[in-house]
Amino acid sequence: MAQRIGDVIALPSRPVCLGQAAVGGKIEGEGPLGSAFAEVFAEAKLGEENWEMAESRLQQAAIAHALRSASCQPGGIDLHFGGDLLNQCTATNFALRQLHMPLAGLYAACGTFALSLAMAALALDSGGFTRVSAAASSHFCAAEKQFRFPLEYGCEPTPTNQRTATAAGAAILGTGSEKSGQAAPRVTQIIFGRVVDMGVKDANSMGAAMAPAAWDTLRRFLAGTRTAPNDYDMILTGDLGKIGTALFKALAQKEAGLNLQGVHHDGGTLLYSTPKQDVGVGGSGIGCSAAVLCANILPRLRAGNLHRVLFLGTGALLSAISPLQGETIPSIAHGVLIESP
Amino acid sequence: MAQRIGDVIALPSRPVCLGQAAVGGKIEGEGPLGSAFAEVFAEAKLGEENWEMAESRLQQAAIAHALRSASCQPGGIDLHFGGDLLNQCTATNFALRQLHMPLAGLYAACGTFALSLAMAALALDSGGFTRVSAAASSHFCAAEKQFRFPLEYGCEPTPTNQRTATAAGAAILGTGSEKSGQAAPRVTQIIFGRVVDMGVKDANSMGAAMAPAAWDTLRRFLAGTRTAPNDYDMILTGDLGKIGTALFKALAQKEAGLNLQGVHHDGGTLLYSTPKQDVGVGGSGIGCSAAVLCANILPRLRAGNLHRVLFLGTGALLSAISPLQGETIPSIAHGVLIESP
Repeated sequence: MAQRIGDVIALPSRPVCLGQAAVGGKIEGEGPLGSAFAEVFAEAKLGEENWEMAESRLQQAAIAHALRSASCQPGGIDLHFGGDLLNQCTATNFALRQLHMPLAGLYAACGTFALSLAMAALALDSGGFTRVSAAASSHFCAAEKQFRFPLEYGCEPTPTNQRTATAAGAAILGTGSEKSGQAAPRVTQIIFGRVVDMGVKDANSMGAAMAPAAWDTLRRFLAGTRTAPNDYDMILTGDLGKIGTALFKALAQKEAGLNLQGVHHDGGTLLYSTPKQDVGVGGSGIGCSAAVLCANILPRLRAGNLHRVLFLGTGALLSAISPLQGETIPSIAHGVLIESP
Repeated sequence: MAQRIGDVIALPSRPVCLGQAAVGGKIEGEGPLGSAFAEVFAEAKLGEENWEMAESRLQQAAIAHALRSASCQPGGIDLHFGGDLLNQCTATNFALRQLHMPLAGLYAACGTFALSLAMAALALDSGGFTRVSAAASSHFCAAEKQFRFPLEYGCEPTPTNQRTATAAGAAILGTGSEKSGQAAPRVTQIIFGRVVDMGVKDANSMGAAMAPAAWDTLRRFLAGTRTAPNDYDMILTGDLGKIGTALFKALAQKEAGLNLQGVHHDGGTLLYSTPKQDVGVGGSGIGCSAAVLCANILPRLRAGNLHRVLFLGTGALLSAISPLQGETIPSIAHGVLIESP
């Protein structure tokens, strides 16, 4: 039975991560996590006719590799949680057409993978499920087309822009009683984000819009658990980029006197080699934090190199038209504590 | 603790519906459920500058009325579940800006309210939450603009078209131990839909695309619970419209010899007076089934006029561009069994 501590939900059954996988595009494959991807797709369309179906294919690949790493079949999954940035979450919905797993579609913009892991762990803790999965994806070309300009237009990104990752991550989770190696990562606590809007209007500076949401969730998480940042090996946000990271750290310092230096890392700055790779102030997109978590963080937890990671998935909840209508950018951050012995 | 019976999740704690409310636009207010709406908005923009914010306002109103009917404050809600049809679910995300409730954003197209109720009940059954809420909305003008043609174009709907409802519904749920009158409706079993795609390509005939998904979920629900249609006072689909309803009944008859006549009703045919109101083959949109459930079904359960309703929320998982890319329409149906003594 889940237990509430302040705004935090503790999961005493400690759902276990049985396997995970990340896949990426060419540029992501050339980044520092490239060798950790289960598959790298050199061709941006993945053999499909359009960017949307290419992203769907990307997500299917991540799920297939994750299932394999967990020695699990699609039919063994009781419920799948996932989402993406495309209108009406079509990358997810079309990906699941061939898998026949029940689907709970989620949307929290780039915080969707964190929300998926949180809901997956909660479902397992409820006792009604044996194995569940979580996945999320984004595709640079699909996102540019939908949110900014057609690629053919050759638009220059602004200096505050984050690059939407062509990537997907997927994880298979089982009940706490399931055996999965000594150091298998376990989801032990979760926290759900609130919509925070501090009035940022610039859709090309989403790290700035999301930083206050990340801080709101971190603040509530630390208060609920009565812990401090240094009680964690890593606080991973995904994805604030360089500007959002600076603002997030400044908020923690100013509002609570907390120094996050050293313990805080950001998915948006881990996926690419900057400034060698020209990705603005870092990576973004739902697939970015999903891929960083599945290619890097979960394996390091499994290897015993990390033991306690608080993953704060941040999302900017705008649409392509809301900024054009003069709206500010509401944001959210969902949190998942992942531990290994 | 939740228990699995086949594909069905039983919730022995029996989470209770503490209150609910539906709101609608002018045409919905003139329909058979008009007098049961907590508020009817004669002006389509609800005082906002655009259709998207109008829908957001609609959802806020439904949540506010539902909170009032449950004698509950926004601060008393541990987690809110909800979604809408707009790109990136902005009606929901913008509505939640002023409410400060943690938000789990969901997407299952017009099946989103059923998914929200299912997740809300599962969360309560997990033990980690005391009070949660669920809401969903749609707006005719916002949906036409996004999925079809600008209203100013004056496009004639096809004969198979369903009218997207300008409506929202919201419900407040509490733990099974919470007192809420003798005949308070309770969510006792839930089932999650799988993505079903039988190759329908006509985006103006979504009832046809969704009928096989509704049947897939009903079939698995009846198999899991070892029950028959007549064990229920009502099987409510939302929203198949007239054509989808005929196909759904035909599938049940052909594949399992089941006669759904009498026990089956559809949200899309309950919201409007047809043919008096010119709504094609019925209503549709996330807000349609949400409003029918909150304005009509939950109150009838509460009054003791219904005792056992299986609500199958159906969604067509297309985007505005996927049919133009030659894609078929994947669909899904999530199920919630609501009982009262």
